[in-house]
Amino acid sequence: MNLDQIDTPALILDKSRLARNTAAMTARVRDLGVDLRPHLKTAKSADVARLALDGNFGGLAVATLREAEYFFDNGFSDMTYAACIVPSKLNRVAALCAKGADLKLITDNAGVARALSEYQAESGGADGRPLKVLIEIDCGEHRTGVLPDSPALLDIAGILDAADGIALEGVLTHAGHSYACRTPDEMAAVAEEERAAVVGAADRIRAAGHPCPTVSAGSTPCVMFVRDVTGLSEVRPGVYMFGDMFHAGLGTRKIDEIAITVLASVIAHREDDNQLYIDAGGLALSKDRATAAFEGDADCGYGLVCDAATARPIPGLKVASVHQEHGLVTSVGPMPFGDLPIGHRVRVMPNHVCMTVAAYDAYNVIESEAGTGTHLVPSST
Amino acid sequence: MNLDQIDTPALILDKSRLARNTAAMTARVRDLGVDLRPHLKTAKSADVARLALDGNFGGLAVATLREAEYFFDNGFSDMTYAACIVPSKLNRVAALCAKGADLKLITDNAGVARALSEYQAESGGADGRPLKVLIEIDCGEHRTGVLPDSPALLDIAGILDAADGIALEGVLTHAGHSYACRTPDEMAAVAEEERAAVVGAADRIRAAGHPCPTVSAGSTPCVMFVRDVTGLSEVRPGVYMFGDMFHAGLGTRKIDEIAITVLASVIAHREDDNQLYIDAGGLALSKDRATAAFEGDADCGYGLVCDAATARPIPGLKVASVHQEHGLVTSVGPMPFGDLPIGHRVRVMPNHVCMTVAAYDAYNVIESEAGTGTHLVPSST
Repeated sequence: MNLDQIDTPALILDKSRLARNTAAMTARVRDLGVDLRPHLKTAKSADVARLALDGNFGGLAVATLREAEYFFDNGFSDMTYAACIVPSKLNRVAALCAKGADLKLITDNAGVARALSEYQAESGGADGRPLKVLIEIDCGEHRTGVLPDSPALLDIAGILDAADGIALEGVLTHAGHSYACRTPDEMAAVAEEERAAVVGAADRIRAAGHPCPTVSAGSTPCVMFVRDVTGLSEVRPGVYMFGDMFHAGLGTRKIDEIAITVLASVIAHREDDNQLYIDAGGLALSKDRATAAFEGDADCGYGLVCDAATARPIPGLKVASVHQEHGLVTSVGPMPFGDLPIGHRVRVMPNHVCMTVAAYDAYNVIESEAGTGTHLVPSST
Repeated sequence: MNLDQIDTPALILDKSRLARNTAAMTARVRDLGVDLRPHLKTAKSADVARLALDGNFGGLAVATLREAEYFFDNGFSDMTYAACIVPSKLNRVAALCAKGADLKLITDNAGVARALSEYQAESGGADGRPLKVLIEIDCGEHRTGVLPDSPALLDIAGILDAADGIALEGVLTHAGHSYACRTPDEMAAVAEEERAAVVGAADRIRAAGHPCPTVSAGSTPCVMFVRDVTGLSEVRPGVYMFGDMFHAGLGTRKIDEIAITVLASVIAHREDDNQLYIDAGGLALSKDRATAAFEGDADCGYGLVCDAATARPIPGLKVASVHQEHGLVTSVGPMPFGDLPIGHRVRVMPNHVCMTVAAYDAYNVIESEAGTGTHLVPSST
């Protein structure tokens, strides 16, 4: 089996690149002296999680309860469900904890903290083990989370710490506004803003007499460029494992480090328009236009068109627009129709890998030799 | 079971609205005097296909071979795979035809037509039944397809008609540029452009001595507003079954006809920003921004926020931005936080239903009473 025998469109995972990316992050975070809790919302795969945890302490972050259930069923216990819990989801949480999962929740709301307290009082908890809850901190993204200097922070901490069957586990934040940065200095500045906010919140909680063992931060840009992690206990980057064209534009991953591509077939030539079509459209690539934030070549439309064997970009080509199952490929110069006959395969590097990966049931795994990227050894899916 | 017991985010299908939409289209196309070949690329469901075919002649259109295989396994035989075939997919086509599928292919390329001819000559075809192939016509969208007056049209027709084991089935086109229209008159004009192109191509093929039994056109806007179908044998609309906010903006579906919503929970309040967050983000809704084409209220961001019980819009609210699992809801006036406590459910009408539906494994089916939209009777998924 080789790339020519896989039905298109198909999701291709280059395991060699993935392994290099995960090993580099593991080394980086070990040097920083904090724990690495990789976020698996992107990869959604136990095989990938095992690579990301190789040499690490063992915990994961997930974005949905379905992800938590999947990873628990595949042998992972220590997980932080890093999106605000709502009371209607507590039965599902309790079922997972009763099976033995060490699942940590987050909240940014005193009413929810009270509801958690009441739920634990009524249900009795999972075998006497407390439910671990972190308080989400808004460090400047203005998404979810309480501001670190807000009265609500200590209200929530007080409710959680007083509740039977709940352990106040700490504080957690996500500097999603690091994605608006364009230079290492800007990313380092946001990383410091993130650190200061979440550590400041932890200090306030402790000063009020409550425990706060975990101080969790992290996005891929912040972890790549942070200069000081004083007070943090863990970081939760995720996209670093795979990379994508947005991260290539940010400078947090190089193009030859991107581990995920979409294999596609040329399905039509439009010589009158200097264009061609591939069978990877809005469903195969996603409609994410993150690279629209960049100028010039770094805006690759809906994806960068690469040679299938080498994964090297074909100069001047990008997926300029998408229909459901059609991708329109344009060329800066004359389209090399002769090199790209109908039926020829290309690989497309996506804008936003989280969106792209989510559309598929499985990875087609290949291994590329380090340095050359040309020798493909198919591996198990 | 009711909407309060479904885990969020979840895809909700209002079967009453679907049934009204499919019955209305069946009646419309019967009045036009052509066959309705509903496109199932949106719904991807055998149950939905059976409703769409109720009272029709029985054929479907699909966008991928995986869809064709699924529908064949669920009892459907007459299918048009309405995206350009490439030779590497022919083994999969042959396997489906060998099992009895009446699968029709399309091409816009003489080289592919020759490859089809060679494939049939080598393989002997499926039990002596010819492979049916239509020629795709570009009627003005400039996607795939040959121009109706091009020399290539008759080249391809000649190759297919001369090939052993191939039946030249006819011509097919898709006026995707109807989506750029904003008025019924504009849509009627594109529908006439589409009709003239594909009927003109059929006339040329017949004048050259080749058969052309099928003349297939259709997008939801064209079928809704076409005034003359002379020469067409069938139409292939798809989105009409469900509708979405883009079609509401076009005027091809009303908001109270939209049959698909995403059920979501309020997960956080940002009173300082007059905003709240729901647990439906870029994966649950898709990142499609089709309604950006409209001005004012018709641009609903990533989706229109509605009351969960009635599916009526909550005035002034929309999903203004999305993260992977977070949707930011903004309000033109003061956010009604009291009516939308944390844990409260809303339903979001998506921009582009094809993209939204594709992210889910199954529908949660409800039935709303005609006229009121308030009484929900859960049905099987």
